[in-house]
Amino acid sequence: MALEDRPLELAAEIPPPDEAAAEEARRRHLGLIKPPGSLGRLEDLGARLSAMAGWCPPPVPESPAVVVCAGDHGVRDRGVSPWPREVTAAMVSNFCTGGAAVNAIAKTVGARMSVLDVGVAGELQKHPLLRAAKVRRGTGDLSRGPAMSREEAARAVMAGAGVAEELVESGGVDLLVTGDMGIGNTTPAAALISAFTGHPPEETTGRGTGIDDETLKLKLNVVKEALELHVPDSEDPLGVLAQIGGLEHAAIVGVILTGAVYGIPVILDGVVSDSAALVARALAPHSAGYVVAGHRSTEPGVLISLRSLDLSSLLDLDMRLGEGTGGLLAVPLVQAAARTLKEMAMLEEIGFG
Amino acid sequence: MALEDRPLELAAEIPPPDEAAAEEARRRHLGLIKPPGSLGRLEDLGARLSAMAGWCPPPVPESPAVVVCAGDHGVRDRGVSPWPREVTAAMVSNFCTGGAAVNAIAKTVGARMSVLDVGVAGELQKHPLLRAAKVRRGTGDLSRGPAMSREEAARAVMAGAGVAEELVESGGVDLLVTGDMGIGNTTPAAALISAFTGHPPEETTGRGTGIDDETLKLKLNVVKEALELHVPDSEDPLGVLAQIGGLEHAAIVGVILTGAVYGIPVILDGVVSDSAALVARALAPHSAGYVVAGHRSTEPGVLISLRSLDLSSLLDLDMRLGEGTGGLLAVPLVQAAARTLKEMAMLEEIGFG
Repeated sequence: MALEDRPLELAAEIPPPDEAAAEEARRRHLGLIKPPGSLGRLEDLGARLSAMAGWCPPPVPESPAVVVCAGDHGVRDRGVSPWPREVTAAMVSNFCTGGAAVNAIAKTVGARMSVLDVGVAGELQKHPLLRAAKVRRGTGDLSRGPAMSREEAARAVMAGAGVAEELVESGGVDLLVTGDMGIGNTTPAAALISAFTGHPPEETTGRGTGIDDETLKLKLNVVKEALELHVPDSEDPLGVLAQIGGLEHAAIVGVILTGAVYGIPVILDGVVSDSAALVARALAPHSAGYVVAGHRSTEPGVLISLRSLDLSSLLDLDMRLGEGTGGLLAVPLVQAAARTLKEMAMLEEIGFG
Repeated sequence: MALEDRPLELAAEIPPPDEAAAEEARRRHLGLIKPPGSLGRLEDLGARLSAMAGWCPPPVPESPAVVVCAGDHGVRDRGVSPWPREVTAAMVSNFCTGGAAVNAIAKTVGARMSVLDVGVAGELQKHPLLRAAKVRRGTGDLSRGPAMSREEAARAVMAGAGVAEELVESGGVDLLVTGDMGIGNTTPAAALISAFTGHPPEETTGRGTGIDDETLKLKLNVVKEALELHVPDSEDPLGVLAQIGGLEHAAIVGVILTGAVYGIPVILDGVVSDSAALVARALAPHSAGYVVAGHRSTEPGVLISLRSLDLSSLLDLDMRLGEGTGGLLAVPLVQAAARTLKEMAMLEEIGFG
């Protein structure tokens, strides 16, 4: 099979979420030992988890893992970020040595961590946490040409899929969290969100981890130029990814598709993950049934993506760091939604049913 | 010392939160390996945790515990809740046998659980999780007379304080979560919130775990009658607690004061805990520096209380169950706020400082 076809093959394996299991969860919640509806959004989440698992009550995820996908961006050289490109490689090293925010938060929620190099521009030292699957040393500048070839996009998707598959198959992972690292990567995220939702760049382009007004103006123009240059066709998701995406965005698409294939929840972090979820849905409409929106973040494209995906985020803590930090903080909420549904007694058991 | 004076004695032991430590945390956050401010509300929370601990970085709480305080309410017989009074005792048994939402969520976040009977109307079987400190078998109807005597209120406060002290001193608990169980207990909560914030009952009285329009109207009238009957004086917090409070509200006041004495954070659950935090602040202004708002809940009195306490909740999941469920879900957020501040590397360490 051609490499380019493999993401679609993966997408085709995703079972539709089981609506009957979701309905059973909603019914079960009415009989649990509490006033109906009093667990609020955990109840909807429990129903969704049941649909993903295909049964009710759903299993309680005990082995979460975050996959931090890292890549560099040719568009960085247009000045869309104040941070030098070298920060990407430095942060990947920092993830490996344990000094980043994502390390502290993964430890807090008991998640293991994998760092995936699909496109960091610099050389990286080997490390047990680091999966080396560099497709190329950063993308091309999406405002001047394609970010990458279709084959490179497919390879990055499959690299993410490979890590996720290994975590699930060999590691017993039952809950995935997507994370990203890549200086400049909210620029392709904005372009992808515009391409897949139809919202103009003015609405999807934001300040990322924090840029000034002048840089924001420049970034907006860059996104506009990219969309005008490529005229992306949302019916060809791999093509769009290749034109205006990023290598880590592509890898996250692979993580999402793989989670969905296994019927396990995939918690999205921030805007980069959300943009990848739009690509994943374009490849595999059922995949949207397996993603959970972890954190809202301050980036405007997040709300647009989540609305389009019919999701609302569990957390809203004004974070804008990426790395998987916001997604990881939602892990206990997903676990609690499953555990209440599974372990609570029924009202009739205490005579008030 | 007279029993009545003991809550004030406890209150007097609370050290002021250490503003210098908070300032040091804010400075430290600027140097951590991330864009400034990108951890959003976790950064403010980290500064507050530093102020509570009196140093920066603050210790990472590793041993959380929820104290579920239970009592019954004479005002229940006015019909303010559709649930029979017997549900309080039944739920306490359910907490002990592990079938309630609070059990599932405590397990999820690794919190131990104590259930404190300060005023359940029925007999309860002994159980290792249950601390028996019944002050009386439910309060009197606050709309017709005092809910309890000043001495009873003081005893309930000190019962909560005693459990919290034991958890901290013998159990090594370093993070407390308040929880409540008591059919009818959002009625005294609304009355307390009106008494301490000056907001009229129309703004503080809500649907609790879920009542219809007619019951809400009746409940509102009951709260009005109670405030008109007692004309509570917010300068005499113990007196107000005795007039219009509840035994579990009083016990939660004791938990809050004790957490503050030890300089450890106390996560508030919903409206009952929030109303108790207002009483605690009236007794000990510094105590407000040690409470963290876990969950917003749909009850209108929550927002009014939190504004008055200058807090905003970490979670907003439309929950309205009580038991400590919303507070417990915020435990990982508090841990993450401390851990990021403590364990992250500094920018200068990787050459970008």
